[in-house]
Amino acid sequence: MTNRVKVEEKVLSENDRLASELRRQFREHKIVVLNLVSSPGSGKTTLLENTLRALNAELKIAIIAGDVQTENDANRLSAAGGRMVHPIVTGGKCHLDAKMVSDVTARLDLDDVELLFIENVGNLVCPSSYDLGEDMKVVLVSTTEGDDKPMKYPGMFRRSSALVINKTDLLGTSEFSLDRVKENALNINGALKSFEVSCRSGNGLENWYVWLKELVRAKRDGERLT
Amino acid sequence: MTNRVKVEEKVLSENDRLASELRRQFREHKIVVLNLVSSPGSGKTTLLENTLRALNAELKIAIIAGDVQTENDANRLSAAGGRMVHPIVTGGKCHLDAKMVSDVTARLDLDDVELLFIENVGNLVCPSSYDLGEDMKVVLVSTTEGDDKPMKYPGMFRRSSALVINKTDLLGTSEFSLDRVKENALNINGALKSFEVSCRSGNGLENWYVWLKELVRAKRDGERLT
Repeated sequence: MTNRVKVEEKVLSENDRLASELRRQFREHKIVVLNLVSSPGSGKTTLLENTLRALNAELKIAIIAGDVQTENDANRLSAAGGRMVHPIVTGGKCHLDAKMVSDVTARLDLDDVELLFIENVGNLVCPSSYDLGEDMKVVLVSTTEGDDKPMKYPGMFRRSSALVINKTDLLGTSEFSLDRVKENALNINGALKSFEVSCRSGNGLENWYVWLKELVRAKRDGERLT
Repeated sequence: MTNRVKVEEKVLSENDRLASELRRQFREHKIVVLNLVSSPGSGKTTLLENTLRALNAELKIAIIAGDVQTENDANRLSAAGGRMVHPIVTGGKCHLDAKMVSDVTARLDLDDVELLFIENVGNLVCPSSYDLGEDMKVVLVSTTEGDDKPMKYPGMFRRSSALVINKTDLLGTSEFSLDRVKENALNINGALKSFEVSCRSGNGLENWYVWLKELVRAKRDGERLT
């Protein structure tokens, strides 16, 4: 084993230890935690803006918005009504890790949170290796990317529990096929739950909101999330 | 300095050493080498398909197509007429490094190449740190991503020499502004040369082709590339 591999394993096992501690806290406070991952530009922030507008009055939502540089996303989310929006600027790092998340959650009143979104850095590769204590990873793809993304970035799709296909209003402007992307994704992960949405027109978002509310209810009642 | 940082520095300095050796070989054989970087789905492969169709008869073009998994891109490029297309499957790694490129170029007849494209892994973060011996990095963004991408991934835009703004046929379907993305990019790197293209309609590609031909001519004549 090379020195490099040894250090990588040590970093990941230290991350796993911190992530377990985060998961224990989230469970204790009955918080649903979703780790949102995608390419840059697939629409994670826009999905969260819509979600805040729709559910902010009903659910206690907190958001940790990770970015390599700038707090643009966090500012957009606060403007959309987010009460508890916390930016993490990674300063060049390509992913969030459990330590960065712990540093934020230590300052949060966890009793005041029912649903925590962690918006990861836009990157379909590296964030897949870092557990953040989440209940589920939710991976976004947009219809303006290629429909072979699941095959090209299988690690991320294998480790995610839900797939949001965004920008359905732009279907037909490229060769992208909804059926093909879903088939490619299910070939890698047969348990993937999928949503087809347009954050622009609002189409399909209702199903997403219903699912989020059901997750919060299930967590509150001590049921298994599905 | 932590053990981790030390190992990272060692990896990068070993990469720089190999990249210098690659650059020496490319110069010796008068090959223009462009390292194409972008988010997944911005259209690197589609740009190269178009470029092959337009210039394959005129220039000796080789392509190294990097991907995390699958040889889809390489297959598409061969189908578009590429004579010298070499896939690199990184098997989970988030970037190409100079060693992977060296392993391919060792098997190429470099005297038969005038223009080498290295299509990097779709990732706006990690590939910016790895020199591959290229003359220039070319960064793509598409009009379906956010126009704040240069600010959010400044490292990549700072280290690139040219910017290709793709999918201009989809301008107007979102809030994306051409002026804003160019202003954001120039604020980070005032020397960035930019192209506005639609790989779908063909608009703007002629400027890109003219530039590529001029690079090959300048390299052949021993002039500085601009």
